[in-house]
Amino acid sequence: MNLVLRNIHRPPAQLTEAFSQYGVATVHEAQGRTGLLAPRIRPIYAGARISGAAVTVSVPPADNWMIHVAVEQCRAGDILVVAPTSLSEAGYFGELLASSLRSRGVRGLVIDAGVRDVAELTAMSFPAWSRCISAQGTVKETLGSVNVPVVCAGMLVHPGDVVIADDDGVCIVPRQTAAATLEQCAARTRKEAAVRARLEAGELGLDIYGMRARLAERGLIYQDAPPESA
Amino acid sequence: MNLVLRNIHRPPAQLTEAFSQYGVATVHEAQGRTGLLAPRIRPIYAGARISGAAVTVSVPPADNWMIHVAVEQCRAGDILVVAPTSLSEAGYFGELLASSLRSRGVRGLVIDAGVRDVAELTAMSFPAWSRCISAQGTVKETLGSVNVPVVCAGMLVHPGDVVIADDDGVCIVPRQTAAATLEQCAARTRKEAAVRARLEAGELGLDIYGMRARLAERGLIYQDAPPESA
Amino acid sequence: MNLVLRNIHRPPAQLTEAFSQYGVATVHEAQGRTGLLAPRIRPIYAGARISGAAVTVSVPPADNWMIHVAVEQCRAGDILVVAPTSLSEAGYFGELLASSLRSRGVRGLVIDAGVRDVAELTAMSFPAWSRCISAQGTVKETLGSVNVPVVCAGMLVHPGDVVIADDDGVCIVPRQTAAATLEQCAARTRKEAAVRARLEAGELGLDIYGMRARLAERGLIYQDAPPESA
Amino acid sequence: MNLVLRNIHRPPAQLTEAFSQYGVATVHEAQGRTGLLAPRIRPIYAGARISGAAVTVSVPPADNWMIHVAVEQCRAGDILVVAPTSLSEAGYFGELLASSLRSRGVRGLVIDAGVRDVAELTAMSFPAWSRCISAQGTVKETLGSVNVPVVCAGMLVHPGDVVIADDDGVCIVPRQTAAATLEQCAARTRKEAAVRARLEAGELGLDIYGMRARLAERGLIYQDAPPESA
Amino acid sequence: MNLVLRNIHRPPAQLTEAFSQYGVATVHEAQGRTGLLAPRIRPIYAGARISGAAVTVSVPPADNWMIHVAVEQCRAGDILVVAPTSLSEAGYFGELLASSLRSRGVRGLVIDAGVRDVAELTAMSFPAWSRCISAQGTVKETLGSVNVPVVCAGMLVHPGDVVIADDDGVCIVPRQTAAATLEQCAARTRKEAAVRARLEAGELGLDIYGMRARLAERGLIYQDAPPESA
Amino acid sequence: MNLVLRNIHRPPAQLTEAFSQYGVATVHEAQGRTGLLAPRIRPIYAGARISGAAVTVSVPPADNWMIHVAVEQCRAGDILVVAPTSLSEAGYFGELLASSLRSRGVRGLVIDAGVRDVAELTAMSFPAWSRCISAQGTVKETLGSVNVPVVCAGMLVHPGDVVIADDDGVCIVPRQTAAATLEQCAARTRKEAAVRARLEAGELGLDIYGMRARLAERGLIYQDAPPESA
Repeated sequence: MNLVLRNIHRPPAQLTEAFSQYGVATVHEAQGRTGLLAPRIRPIYAGARISGAAVTVSVPPADNWMIHVAVEQCRAGDILVVAPTSLSEAGYFGELLASSLRSRGVRGLVIDAGVRDVAELTAMSFPAWSRCISAQGTVKETLGSVNVPVVCAGMLVHPGDVVIADDDGVCIVPRQTAAATLEQCAARTRKEAAVRARLEAGELGLDIYGMRARLAERGLIYQDAPPESA
Repeated sequence: MNLVLRNIHRPPAQLTEAFSQYGVATVHEAQGRTGLLAPRIRPIYAGARISGAAVTVSVPPADNWMIHVAVEQCRAGDILVVAPTSLSEAGYFGELLASSLRSRGVRGLVIDAGVRDVAELTAMSFPAWSRCISAQGTVKETLGSVNVPVVCAGMLVHPGDVVIADDDGVCIVPRQTAAATLEQCAARTRKEAAVRARLEAGELGLDIYGMRARLAERGLIYQDAPPESA
Repeated sequence: MNLVLRNIHRPPAQLTEAFSQYGVATVHEAQGRTGLLAPRIRPIYAGARISGAAVTVSVPPADNWMIHVAVEQCRAGDILVVAPTSLSEAGYFGELLASSLRSRGVRGLVIDAGVRDVAELTAMSFPAWSRCISAQGTVKETLGSVNVPVVCAGMLVHPGDVVIADDDGVCIVPRQTAAATLEQCAARTRKEAAVRARLEAGELGLDIYGMRARLAERGLIYQDAPPESA
Repeated sequence: MNLVLRNIHRPPAQLTEAFSQYGVATVHEAQGRTGLLAPRIRPIYAGARISGAAVTVSVPPADNWMIHVAVEQCRAGDILVVAPTSLSEAGYFGELLASSLRSRGVRGLVIDAGVRDVAELTAMSFPAWSRCISAQGTVKETLGSVNVPVVCAGMLVHPGDVVIADDDGVCIVPRQTAAATLEQCAARTRKEAAVRARLEAGELGLDIYGMRARLAERGLIYQDAPPESA
Repeated sequence: MNLVLRNIHRPPAQLTEAFSQYGVATVHEAQGRTGLLAPRIRPIYAGARISGAAVTVSVPPADNWMIHVAVEQCRAGDILVVAPTSLSEAGYFGELLASSLRSRGVRGLVIDAGVRDVAELTAMSFPAWSRCISAQGTVKETLGSVNVPVVCAGMLVHPGDVVIADDDGVCIVPRQTAAATLEQCAARTRKEAAVRARLEAGELGLDIYGMRARLAERGLIYQDAPPESA
Repeated sequence: MNLVLRNIHRPPAQLTEAFSQYGVATVHEAQGRTGLLAPRIRPIYAGARISGAAVTVSVPPADNWMIHVAVEQCRAGDILVVAPTSLSEAGYFGELLASSLRSRGVRGLVIDAGVRDVAELTAMSFPAWSRCISAQGTVKETLGSVNVPVVCAGMLVHPGDVVIADDDGVCIVPRQTAAATLEQCAARTRKEAAVRARLEAGELGLDIYGMRARLAERGLIYQDAPPESA
């Protein structure tokens, strides 16, 4: 059955936006090291950091018809998350679709397949995270679904989940736990700031984190390098 | 038999050059979604876009002798297309060969193997598209051929074919159909400009392309998200 | 047995630093085409070139505890070289560890696994060469070793070896032969400068390197392209 | 939170077992081309075909502690489905764990990581489907979870789902729809038997499936090969 | 343009069949180390060796419609060679298509994509060489072409070329040079038989091939291992 | 410098042979989870298990000249270990070299590149472990070295080290520690036999290994599955 779910539940906009002050690495740690897409998903240009609500798209291999369908379901602040039902390196998405999404306030794209027109996407500052860059065209022949749960690059994504993406990759925060995770991000960031200052001042992580006793207990041996034979 | 073909037939220079105003994605679509090299072929730096006539080189694995032979066969406006006869990630090409090609007016390199000296190539704005970046040296022990048909990254390339390369990858246009394909590029670009304006104004691709009836005919179902349980 | 070797023997600082004037490709050629890490090791940003003495770390998969241990063993001018004992794409290293290493004068990181916080590492100009970029967190549960010989991306690295890294990748020069290799680099660079000038002036490598006789002896055939049928 | 869910709901045994008369390809088609694990998951020996109820295990990279925990949750007719939280090629599973599972009536293993002792597993006819074969040992240091939903080789698996595995790979049927899918398998198999007989008798799929009109409508052109020039 | 070429020119049947007495490695050497498909193409079961005339099929990704079209163009002694226009790991081919091909006397399949029903194909001794094994279904929505030149796994294949396939992989012999290559195979095999007998008798290749002088000339150094320190 | 080291030191024959009673997985565990080659190295046929002394060969990419040189350095009980200096999938080794090695009593081959004639090697029961199967021919143009330390599939191998290879892969035991590792294998095997008997009798690893307390201490939570809603 091929389905388009309309008017999905999204987190409050200010909650979703608040995540963009934290990096993917922080969010991933803050929610217990879960939610990361596989590292094959890379940004098409460096320096972007976005957060938004997921509009999900399940697409057949090398067929981008459902992305056109999904555009209509997008609102300002959304991020499109596209997952093919089997491996594809085709170029599903280019500058025309980006123009259309931009006009609706969509913040970016995450796709476990290919993207094209990357020079144009870069020039218009429309960020995308993808498996590859490929100009290979797609067809519009087979249905898929919009706003169903999808597995994208190894991670389950529900419509309305929070997507955070930056140079480190992409992390998904379930909508139900987004507020709690955001608080964890803030707490973690405060703690890291204190540690950073001590590390910059030359203190060792071994001491700050109190690791020496546990290393000794596990049996780590320290030796000086032997003198070199003449 | 190892062969060097001299004085190959090239398209007229103004025809070859005219392709550089179009991107790889446009050219690929304009000639019926054919001609693309596999997406493993990536530019060594972002932002270059070139077109030119192919001088082809068939090389043994990890042996760049024939590239030295090929330089002599190059003219202003050419692009060197290098294909190993079996898998190699060696660094066949660096700054010295680029200096030599540049002095002859060659516009760039496409190679299904490795390139080195990428900092220097970037500084001198000599673009290259390659399978990988590798400083691994090559030998000069075994013959290959110049200006024979080669399969490069999955695509058949004849000497004198038009090569278009940009941030999206590399596309090959057969010399015999280059003029017709160029016209298709222009037509396609005009059509896309009109669509882009409508998309930027907020119209939907679903309406512009008239997709709604066919989606309904195929059985796509639209539903509103159910209310959440308390 | 899990071991930390302290006070390893390093080459003289001026020797280690002198390598940074040469690129990885030059050093690799100068020492007889040996020492290169596999090309999967890529810089997280373009444009860095460093040289330094290797502090080596053998780490379990997805466990970065020993990197914290290794920091204490680092001195100004060192480069950290990290090798997992089996395949891992986890993000072992981020901005906090970089801050700690920077405060000790460490010049950069080479790791056959993942790195995170790449936007921050780029902003602070702390270069890293890695297998991938990944925010995937690691644990601190299992011991490894510091300053033992490791195989990193296919290459044997001893503590105190010279590491040279730039946009082409990473090359290792054994400590014992570093002085001799440096001389070879200088000699090679002088020779290449002369060749470059001749190539830029339009001379052919075929003539400069005297290749024509050997090509003929091997049986390379030159032919003109046949006229095209009407 | 690390959780072990006990006494999960499983489909009736005769329902689960009935799937083993159909191949993975049939089941996948019968439920609308969904449920397949990525083709990197391969059997360690040819010729096995099993079906059973999934006991799922989420494991850290290179740490098989939770598999020991999961054994206790298994019953006769189950299949263990193991998914690492990030990429691992370690050998999580060998002959001792297989002996333990066998004594409880477990039918086999599916794991998106490595398996070892494959000669012994083959000799005892304990089938396994895995990403790779690897003797690399694992640790028992970090918790995971048992009988939570996991993403294994790109597919979402809930505890109690039906797992079907044979030489073609692995397919997952959700518990809730297992009975309906089984009926579809039977219907599909009957239909295919009729087609097979006609194909073996030399009839063409083009005619059996009535494809000729639609091919013509799409514009497929038939031509005879031109005579060869003398 | 989508084309089906009928009544292609094939080599004489006895010529095509004669190749099956030689292995792929011999044929590849006999025609000057050309014609091999990339080693990712592997047999679905061990022990098959076939030769035949190529019927070529260019297919869209994940769409096997044109294979049904191609069946009609096949004759006894043919081998089907299928190449997707972009990367696909879908399962294009299974037992029903094999039954249809077998009824026409087709000897096997070569495909740079996936095959399914491998247990059934093995049971009916219908050999196939493929990129992967995958039950992932395909659609029948987009045209391709039959009996046009295709690039399959990096090698150009024309309809009517001779295909040789065994446990080592797949080699293509152009129709025009098939007779000459067959003679080279016979000559090579005779020569190898003589060498084999001498090697089995303990003579060294170094002596049989007269390599010692050239090794010395290149500067190979022989040394005895130093005595071990006590 | 290209070197052949003659008369390397080997472990006593009965020591080397004794390892073949243990599998690779056992040896790897017995020496502290070290020594494994990367899992890309796979046997060309199932069921072989060998142990022997390493004769190492460092070869250029796609050039098998030094394997011919290495044959002369082999003795009964040796295993040839071949490592290319950069990535190669060429078929370095086939039936003629196997015949030559067999006549000298060599037990098998380990190579981080391609092997060909696998049907013949299987028929003559000459086992080989390789990165791939490939008929791609090699040249004999460039020197390498024999019996120098090599890195093969990520592992350092010295001439005279013990090589153990079976269906799980390949493990290297340094010559100096071989006797001690063999004792560890025996001890480990005895211990496993006792555990196996208890597991087969239905006891749980959780109890045999005493894991329950540590799991509880780490916070593992056990819950019953909730009843299903009607």
